Amino acid sequence: MRKISDSTIRRLSVYLRFLEQAKSPTISSGELARLGGTTSAQVRKDLSFFGSFGKRGLGYSVPELTRRIRDILGLERGYRVVLVGAGRMGGALVQYHGFRQRGFHITAIYDQDSRKIGSRWNGLVVRDVKHLETDLKKDPSDIAIVATPAESAQHVVDRLVRSGVKAILNFAPVPLNVPPDVEVKTVNMALELETLSYSLANR
Amino acid sequence: MRKISDSTIRRLSVYLRFLEQAKSPTISSGELARLGGTTSAQVRKDLSFFGSFGKRGLGYSVPELTRRIRDILGLERGYRVVLVGAGRMGGALVQYHGFRQRGFHITAIYDQDSRKIGSRWNGLVVRDVKHLETDLKKDPSDIAIVATPAESAQHVVDRLVRSGVKAILNFAPVPLNVPPDVEVKTVNMALELETLSYSLANR
Repeated sequence: MRKISDSTIRRLSVYLRFLEQAKSPTISSGELARLGGTTSAQVRKDLSFFGSFGKRGLGYSVPELTRRIRDILGLERGYRVVLVGAGRMGGALVQYHGFRQRGFHITAIYDQDSRKIGSRWNGLVVRDVKHLETDLKKDPSDIAIVATPAESAQHVVDRLVRSGVKAILNFAPVPLNVPPDVEVKTVNMALELETLSYSLANR
Repeated sequence: MRKISDSTIRRLSVYLRFLEQAKSPTISSGELARLGGTTSAQVRKDLSFFGSFGKRGLGYSVPELTRRIRDILGLERGYRVVLVGAGRMGGALVQYHGFRQRGFHITAIYDQDSRKIGSRWNGLVVRDVKHLETDLKKDPSDIAIVATPAESAQHVVDRLVRSGVKAILNFAPVPLNVPPDVEVKTVNMALELETLSYSLANR
């Protein structure tokens, strides 16, 4: 399959949300476009990546399209996710309902702060980060969420990568170096506000 | 000034981070590229949007480039930001250092839950959301952060828009309808994990 752009993947995720809530058995590209804030042409282009869906005039079959997008996004399996950093952001993420709904299960939380280690968060006991490698050897995870302070993030990421983690969602406000076979997404809240500030300044 | 793409704006934000930490008076496009995870050609292209910076062989003047990017991003002024939704995510955002560093000051927090109203968060008292309109009339804000449950988000946004808010950072997992003169950015944590899941599934 040829490489699909990040923005297409994001739109597929958005379409999937609406498909999962759809009440009728078919949906048109126009309806998906309206819900997803894009155009029918864009919807058809996005879906054309995966061969021929839909019948002219009848729209897309909701169950088929749901299944295909879930398959494309790799959501048909569940993922074990470890979280490093039991701070404010970590706390918000552990409680985030959207993860579990999508098959992302946070299975362990780590911190280096002795005041946090041993406390119970959403049914999980915060573990000392010194156990990270041995735990991951026993119970491998594909995905890790890093919500540590900026200064510890790269060290944590190096340890995760050595332990076989292949995808990292980073909330530390710092870019991370990883080998080419590891994927990192950095979520930077301040950066999101800056794009808003730009639009306010350039109205 | 012609319209600059969202991805350029994001890279400018990233360059700004490194410029603010730079220790020498000049920086080359190669160095900015290395720090920002892009190419020199991309850096030069991004900066060329704003006229001629830099001298061949000497690199960019750090103070000048810093000032210009801050100006472009509209960061030379501070912003008052109201937060609606005093849940887990709201709590993490209130404590987020990066906002204040960038001139985004959360000046009020609202919720509708009587158990939260009146509690003190980071020096701010959580206010009843029923006061939203009267407060914004007295102390207008350009930017709001919405961190409510999905089902209340659109109603809150409608009220913010009627009160003159022009830019919204949305953490509720739902797309929002706003008039054309209002800018919304939605941060969807599950969607970030889905782009990682896609890359794991299509290695």
